[in-house]
Amino acid sequence: MRLARHGRPGQETPVIGDNSGNWWDLSPLTAGIDGAFLADGLAGAVRSATAGELPRVEVADRFGPPLSGIGKIICIGLNYRDHAAETGAAIPEEPIVFLKTPDTVVGPADTVLIPRKSVKTDWEVELAVVIGAQARYLDSPDDAPGVIAGYAISNDVSEREFQIERGGQWDKGKNCETFNPLGPWILTADEIADPQQLGLRLWVNGEQRQDGTSADMIFGVNHLVWYLSQFMVLRPGDVINTGTPAGVAMGMKDQPYLRAGDVVELEIDGLGRQRQTFEQA
Amino acid sequence: MRLARHGRPGQETPVIGDNSGNWWDLSPLTAGIDGAFLADGLAGAVRSATAGELPRVEVADRFGPPLSGIGKIICIGLNYRDHAAETGAAIPEEPIVFLKTPDTVVGPADTVLIPRKSVKTDWEVELAVVIGAQARYLDSPDDAPGVIAGYAISNDVSEREFQIERGGQWDKGKNCETFNPLGPWILTADEIADPQQLGLRLWVNGEQRQDGTSADMIFGVNHLVWYLSQFMVLRPGDVINTGTPAGVAMGMKDQPYLRAGDVVELEIDGLGRQRQTFEQA
Repeated sequence: MRLARHGRPGQETPVIGDNSGNWWDLSPLTAGIDGAFLADGLAGAVRSATAGELPRVEVADRFGPPLSGIGKIICIGLNYRDHAAETGAAIPEEPIVFLKTPDTVVGPADTVLIPRKSVKTDWEVELAVVIGAQARYLDSPDDAPGVIAGYAISNDVSEREFQIERGGQWDKGKNCETFNPLGPWILTADEIADPQQLGLRLWVNGEQRQDGTSADMIFGVNHLVWYLSQFMVLRPGDVINTGTPAGVAMGMKDQPYLRAGDVVELEIDGLGRQRQTFEQA
Repeated sequence: MRLARHGRPGQETPVIGDNSGNWWDLSPLTAGIDGAFLADGLAGAVRSATAGELPRVEVADRFGPPLSGIGKIICIGLNYRDHAAETGAAIPEEPIVFLKTPDTVVGPADTVLIPRKSVKTDWEVELAVVIGAQARYLDSPDDAPGVIAGYAISNDVSEREFQIERGGQWDKGKNCETFNPLGPWILTADEIADPQQLGLRLWVNGEQRQDGTSADMIFGVNHLVWYLSQFMVLRPGDVINTGTPAGVAMGMKDQPYLRAGDVVELEIDGLGRQRQTFEQA
């Protein structure tokens, strides 16, 4: 099933949907789609929706971020061979980990702001993993599927000068306002036969820039979840941005970084489509 | 005034206190000490406490983290000249920024866990700045005091191998479970004449390891708040860990990293004292 939140910013209603575009109101069961709901309410919500116990709703207008009350957003750097190559970096020997803060998250069609004094704002289509149960020192990657609630599209927007040329750590270029469009929906994990067989695509002003597959990840989803659980506790409502394939502005010859008015569209198989207009902050 | 939360983990009561050790129950006014309270409720709470309108309480037993619903924890690396020198790093030309996730926060006397397979768990006494109003593209460091609600002690516990020797970004060694003891209280900003004139001290098993002053910060509190607001939005309930003075294990000749059973005590002028026993995760 699909889990989403639709409506005006700050007033989103939780909804559950099927892959045919039917949606049902989740408000009778939960106020939001957060960690507590994913851990304790999801199975019942799927049952209620399937049994026809929830009111049908029309979902037009805006989708908000599909997750509320996000705990943390853990990001993996250089996790596709072709992207590592295009940035001139070596293939990582183990996952590179950085963070985005939850207040960077906006809906999939919300405006993204180019930071003041930015000249290198870049895009990154990524498969987001949504955690649904605690993971702490997992024994093996085989334990990972048990803690994954679902998947979504994430645009890991990045300011490359802030990230790389301004002294030290990447987080400085990853946490600008509106820098993490998420959604439109979370597809529950049971609907994805193999998370390592998903196509990821991104266009800027209609021109395709990224055309990758999660098969090319250096460290796959289950490995990442297991690995991260050795360094931090993953909790319901946490998100992992699993890295981007080749085709970002930084990797192109003319480095066509984003400017006000540019439109970025993103797609991942089964996870819907995002479309953002970029504006100056 | 002092703002704190006391009681058992997950069941803390918000309290407000003076510098003589008197405490009053804040429960009639707020459920927690979070961003919304700092932004909208603090002035009224101080008035109520001063006017004797709140019930007196005894605060024995455990302090929890003084802040609930923390939005983000922004950390500054190598922000004291002597600490940069002891780690062999150059003096940063601009602030080094990394992140801790709010779920690493524990109370000032709670147990801190040494991660499994850790051999380099280290301490860092730091002045934490608590944000009380939004800061977005501040014009100058002079605007910073208007968004600072108060100050607290933070132990920026760090696993140096995870941080530095495991591929890439520092966040990997900064976000282990229980790695950010905070408190015992937030001292409201009006009680600190000059945040750049505070002594910071830390002991391990009774032996003093850090003895610094915030006068030695490379980038002062107001500069940091202004600087960070150019890269991200600071919001009420956010915390800035402003860096640590010299005296960490990594900088010592014999590198006496923490082991199970070690007791770490921290103190900052006016902000109280922490005491943690370290145990194996």
